[in-house]
Amino acid sequence: MPRQVDHDARRAEVAALAATLVADRGIGVSVRDVAAEGGFSTTVVTHYFADKSDLLRQAYDSAVAAMTRRIEALEGGPDPLREHCATLLPLDAEAARIWRTWLAFFGAAVGDPDLAGLQRRRVRSSRRAVAELVAADASMRPGVDPDAAARELLALVHGIASEAAFDPDDWPAAAQLAPLDAALARLRS
Amino acid sequence: MPRQVDHDARRAEVAALAATLVADRGIGVSVRDVAAEGGFSTTVVTHYFADKSDLLRQAYDSAVAAMTRRIEALEGGPDPLREHCATLLPLDAEAARIWRTWLAFFGAAVGDPDLAGLQRRRVRSSRRAVAELVAADASMRPGVDPDAAARELLALVHGIASEAAFDPDDWPAAAQLAPLDAALARLRS
Repeated sequence: MPRQVDHDARRAEVAALAATLVADRGIGVSVRDVAAEGGFSTTVVTHYFADKSDLLRQAYDSAVAAMTRRIEALEGGPDPLREHCATLLPLDAEAARIWRTWLAFFGAAVGDPDLAGLQRRRVRSSRRAVAELVAADASMRPGVDPDAAARELLALVHGIASEAAFDPDDWPAAAQLAPLDAALARLRS
Repeated sequence: MPRQVDHDARRAEVAALAATLVADRGIGVSVRDVAAEGGFSTTVVTHYFADKSDLLRQAYDSAVAAMTRRIEALEGGPDPLREHCATLLPLDAEAARIWRTWLAFFGAAVGDPDLAGLQRRRVRSSRRAVAELVAADASMRPGVDPDAAARELLALVHGIASEAAFDPDDWPAAAQLAPLDAALARLRS
């Protein structure tokens, strides 16, 4: 394959590995840990990560990309809005891992304006996507504001996922879906 | 004052300072930073914090204690459930700071079973308090399960606060209260 493609593929592979390690071990994960886990030399990994902050940023981006793939893989069922929101919830091991990477990143973003800016843009972009689904949803009550509805649905998903990350036994699938469905029922006629 | 009281007061003061520094600068804050900020010798501060993990844990506990004082200071208005939930939201500078300390802590708790256990117990305890308010609320619809309602309300508060921490301009008071009031309205007849 062309050299650039090879480079990008390797970078994505290393970032995905970093995301998994951050999810499992927290933000103490070092460039050296990523190298050891992937069987790369530290020199190879430092080629992809400028420093610890860059490692975290790329792990975060990799988790965002993994979630985006899950969303894009949805096959257009009867309720796209609910499917989108449910796909964001940590109902399976992959989504739970993505959320642990994100939570570690949120912690690192406290007191770090660059990382906080990244998170701010991601939330706003995610909200626009959900607002579009609300706007296209024929069952919404008249007068529902798509942005306000998306804000509420995403905050709920965010809160459920944040609590479930530290207490998965307390948040089985039915417990995660019940508040989402209640919020959707209220928005719909 | 008796020596033990003096010791405990000093410990609380140092922990509160650590919580503020974590909120402002993130979990990179060191024992040395806390000493410098408070005008203590590093020796004094290491007397209170066994290590970095202990500093974080005590900063977290201090933020929990600050929020508990806010809740206990509520003066029994007409809607105790809403007042309790609204007091948890980052509607003022103190609550926003408490949440930034917590978010930094959640990040550190990823991959740290002890810190995760602390967070698990706090969420469950906070949920019991809200469930008691739901159970005592005469306006609840028949059939509302207090635990399920508390789970939903706290997840919503948690999600709003997590997003608002990185984007306060996007979450003015009205935007934070609207989803809470919508959820309460749905639970009530």
